[in-house]
Amino acid sequence: MNIRFYNAKILTMIEGQEIFEGELHVEGSRIAYTGAALSDEEMKADGRSFDREIDCEGNLLMPGFKNAHTHSGMTLMRSYADGLPLQEWLETKIFPLEAKMTGDDCALLTKLAVLEYLTSGITSIMDMYLSPEEIATACEETGMRVVQVSGINKFGPSIEVFEERYNKLNGRHPLSSYMMGFHAEYTCDRELLEKLSELAHKYKAPMYTHNSETVKEVGECKERYGMTPTVFLDSLGLFDFGGGGYHCCHMSDEDIEVFKKRGLSAVTNPGSNTKLASGIAPVKRFLDEGINVAIGTDGPSSNNCLDMFREMFLVTGLAKLREKDASVVSGLDVLKMATVNGAKAMGLNDCDVLEKDKEADIIMIDLKQPNMQPVNDIPNNIVYSGSKQNVKMTMIHGKILYEDGKFDIGISPEEIYKQAAAIQERLF
Amino acid sequence: MNIRFYNAKILTMIEGQEIFEGELHVEGSRIAYTGAALSDEEMKADGRSFDREIDCEGNLLMPGFKNAHTHSGMTLMRSYADGLPLQEWLETKIFPLEAKMTGDDCALLTKLAVLEYLTSGITSIMDMYLSPEEIATACEETGMRVVQVSGINKFGPSIEVFEERYNKLNGRHPLSSYMMGFHAEYTCDRELLEKLSELAHKYKAPMYTHNSETVKEVGECKERYGMTPTVFLDSLGLFDFGGGGYHCCHMSDEDIEVFKKRGLSAVTNPGSNTKLASGIAPVKRFLDEGINVAIGTDGPSSNNCLDMFREMFLVTGLAKLREKDASVVSGLDVLKMATVNGAKAMGLNDCDVLEKDKEADIIMIDLKQPNMQPVNDIPNNIVYSGSKQNVKMTMIHGKILYEDGKFDIGISPEEIYKQAAAIQERLF
Repeated sequence: MNIRFYNAKILTMIEGQEIFEGELHVEGSRIAYTGAALSDEEMKADGRSFDREIDCEGNLLMPGFKNAHTHSGMTLMRSYADGLPLQEWLETKIFPLEAKMTGDDCALLTKLAVLEYLTSGITSIMDMYLSPEEIATACEETGMRVVQVSGINKFGPSIEVFEERYNKLNGRHPLSSYMMGFHAEYTCDRELLEKLSELAHKYKAPMYTHNSETVKEVGECKERYGMTPTVFLDSLGLFDFGGGGYHCCHMSDEDIEVFKKRGLSAVTNPGSNTKLASGIAPVKRFLDEGINVAIGTDGPSSNNCLDMFREMFLVTGLAKLREKDASVVSGLDVLKMATVNGAKAMGLNDCDVLEKDKEADIIMIDLKQPNMQPVNDIPNNIVYSGSKQNVKMTMIHGKILYEDGKFDIGISPEEIYKQAAAIQERLF
Repeated sequence: MNIRFYNAKILTMIEGQEIFEGELHVEGSRIAYTGAALSDEEMKADGRSFDREIDCEGNLLMPGFKNAHTHSGMTLMRSYADGLPLQEWLETKIFPLEAKMTGDDCALLTKLAVLEYLTSGITSIMDMYLSPEEIATACEETGMRVVQVSGINKFGPSIEVFEERYNKLNGRHPLSSYMMGFHAEYTCDRELLEKLSELAHKYKAPMYTHNSETVKEVGECKERYGMTPTVFLDSLGLFDFGGGGYHCCHMSDEDIEVFKKRGLSAVTNPGSNTKLASGIAPVKRFLDEGINVAIGTDGPSSNNCLDMFREMFLVTGLAKLREKDASVVSGLDVLKMATVNGAKAMGLNDCDVLEKDKEADIIMIDLKQPNMQPVNDIPNNIVYSGSKQNVKMTMIHGKILYEDGKFDIGISPEEIYKQAAAIQERLF
């Protein structure tokens, strides 16, 4: 389908490019034009024709948000067992429940998350959860772009299944891919980590994991191995082909050096780190050191929502609190993390900016809500005062999946809610 | 107008009362009934008749949010001069601009804020700003309930004007009232504060002020008077009839004792304190000590939005980070702060809960958005995952001012935006 967006403000997120007024064309799954408004004659001369033309009425087009760390299927446990610290919450509440979840459950609960992602302008997710085949299918069916990451740990799956999935889930669909990862240092033994390192080398693959989320995690790793998680994992060669860490709240100077040397991405999850009292990541330091910082919501049981606007405010707000300095981490810095840096962390090189031939993963921000008025600075308005209410449209891979509060993902919200309630009844 | 809400879930916020299913009737500006669903026969027998009957479709009715500290007219400076610490921001950017604002400007900019309050389910505001007569009129015209607080300081107005306003702005309209207050210790000299104390005693009036927002403020007060702001102000008798402090980030044990002894409310403003790097208020301590804690957005230039959902998450999230304990300050605690405690801080004793004869300041929360599904715990869903997107309706004083994204406040959003842009053009 070819779609013309006209009468728009456009924030391409191309380095140094200011917001401009003009139009954007989508042909199939790709962007075919961004630039000044075209006259009817110019369009005719170019042979441009459209299935739909959308008057943006001066609203803003920008790249969709990249949610670089989540566990979508945990929608089931939203507002379940709130108020516990990370490890108690995991071990006494979450793991026992997850043991009972089927692949179909995971698929349906991922679709519930997809609804919420779309309301928040999120156009791709880096998802670590159970039943990756079913999750891939759920995302492909709904139209969500997903980069799955293995969450292998000492409870499973086997390293053979891990490798099989890596081969099977890559290249099967343009919307889905699969990356190497493991749950965390504290849920894997050394033997498993060594085998994973071998596979990383075999496939020259980047590696992702939960890293230095809590003081307890770092302390226990030091007791076990005499090293921080980052340094220990790196000593096994796990990051020889890059990758990244989720959370990264408690980082030593040595950890920072490893991130720089290996070109790792630090994915910050401020909502979850706040709600679980895990700590505040040193985001300003990451930026100063040139480390790629992306943003994730984490799962909806530890956050509890999947809202990039809340995360964006928290990224800059918590950095300001941590550094006791209101000037650190600007609105534009944060928007870059939520778009371009996220795409980089996720290996989505075609989804970062609005430019001809890039993937059409685009959102429209409603500038006519009161929280966006008056217009002093649009990027700051989005980061400091934006909310889900400002998402007028979410397009992924050239398809509009959410527009003016209505979804087009092949299944109705009501049906998803009904099935989620049935799962809840069965498992709780 | 008599309105019947039926097929609703109802969260009255009456202590100990669980959410129930039923209906709620509004007659004129008051609540006439809350309880189980009534049959047609029962309604006939009771002589109940309605101008409008609203099927809530299972969504939630609850008391509107009380925004216990704001400066509405600062919408003009949203995303203007972000990234500065409090006092530099005030002195170099805000005060010079405010010196040029007219009463009409303040009124229009307050109406812009009213739009945003309504989208966030805020039904009353405690507002401290310039041109109080015009602000009262703006709120009365739009239907917003406002408790204004004087922001008198050494630059004006005179103590005579202060007293005159206090008498003139109370009792003039059921939606608006005016309380005694001053900007802050650091913008008033001792003589002015002594005169204010005399007036507090003359009228037996509670007193409100910005208090202990930053480390700098507390340190400078100690240098000047050898006491913290709270202790110094109390030593002048300013809190002899109660009142409260805005921000209250940096509190000594002695300060806490003053708050307890005088029954003062601590109004926390976590969005602003985060963005300006001011610090984190000891909210858990306040609760432990039995101090009334309410929530304010602060003004839209230091926050930058007027969104009670963001504030509610921050209240609990920052308390968890501060105490390094995920179990402190529950979702229900926070909802109480945003409703009942806010009403108490603002002297709005008829606006606190949903109960027969209370003021009809009611909001409807859309439980059918994906961020509210599945339903494990509604109060936690609202606090941890709620957003403006969940506000289906906002009613103040029995009148629906906002419903399904449409406003009914006597002036269109477009007209307000146009006039705000004209002010911006004139003043910047």
